[in-house]
Amino acid sequence: MSVIDELVDEFGKLPGVGPKTALRLVYHLMKGSADEARRLAAAIREVADRVHPCRVCGNFAEGAKCGICANASRDHATICVVEEAFEVGAVERTGVYRGVYHVLGGHLSPLDGIGPDELSVAALERRVDEDGVQELILATSSGVEGQATAVYLEGLFRPRGVRVTRPARGLPVNSDLEYVDGSTLSEALAGRKEM
Amino acid sequence: MSVIDELVDEFGKLPGVGPKTALRLVYHLMKGSADEARRLAAAIREVADRVHPCRVCGNFAEGAKCGICANASRDHATICVVEEAFEVGAVERTGVYRGVYHVLGGHLSPLDGIGPDELSVAALERRVDEDGVQELILATSSGVEGQATAVYLEGLFRPRGVRVTRPARGLPVNSDLEYVDGSTLSEALAGRKEM
Repeated sequence: MSVIDELVDEFGKLPGVGPKTALRLVYHLMKGSADEARRLAAAIREVADRVHPCRVCGNFAEGAKCGICANASRDHATICVVEEAFEVGAVERTGVYRGVYHVLGGHLSPLDGIGPDELSVAALERRVDEDGVQELILATSSGVEGQATAVYLEGLFRPRGVRVTRPARGLPVNSDLEYVDGSTLSEALAGRKEM
Repeated sequence: MSVIDELVDEFGKLPGVGPKTALRLVYHLMKGSADEARRLAAAIREVADRVHPCRVCGNFAEGAKCGICANASRDHATICVVEEAFEVGAVERTGVYRGVYHVLGGHLSPLDGIGPDELSVAALERRVDEDGVQELILATSSGVEGQATAVYLEGLFRPRGVRVTRPARGLPVNSDLEYVDGSTLSEALAGRKEM
């Protein structure tokens, strides 16, 4: 196999990149300067070599701890529990959350053989027991399995005297009623607040 | 800048890859095994280091000559002239062309300062004069500039006794008349053939 075909193959393994897109990317790199391609290769290599899960929370980290766990000015008594490390970025971009995170690595899914032992639940228990955690915000996904995971974690942690919350559900900002799905609208009505 | 941000940046320079797609690609690489990411980096590096223009035709090559120019069983008396190296692949995939290629590197575009000297026209003249070329198939693009480039090359090479052709224009296979654009249909009617 030529080095060109090999690269088409490797690009094709990326999500959302089919054979035609892969070929276009390869042509782009071949048309451009070799240095540009080398910079991309080096950047990928750097990430592969230097990024790994944070020892504390499971977020992406370049050192032993991620930037958030290593930051003393964050509120380490509040943990936002997410399923995947890339969801940390979504919460961070809001700019309003000052606590830390815990990455579960997925949600409970008995049919796929994913129980608490397959997720980083034991590590979360250890953090709660040893680090004076006061609140867990369960930001697991809103589907059935994410809900079940949140309920399971609530049962585990509420008895330990930790405040357990879940982000509010309701109408997205700037949404039109007619475009909001029925279950979101039902939850928004059920959870209505005094003005 | 973190190595993650740097990679998002580098991915974002690829065609059709915006900041969100770039971030998704980076997350994909970080979630997967580091070895998978290293393979991609190595494949890009290999292409950057080893692929360059064929000394004869300008196609992508791993050695001094591309696989087509180096292949003695191809018809070296017939040259298909294309604008860009990636167009060679499109013709090759038909599986019916047995000749060789010449990559111009673009089309004539006086307004952008692109004349014959900016394209590899001199190299094509040398090949025609020295290599016993009998036919040039001018597969430049079908726009005004591609047409003008074909006309220019015809004026240059027909006086030297070389057969100069252009791929047929007409209705694409499996096309519906109502979806074909007007100028294609006009050309198809003007160029109609006896059944």
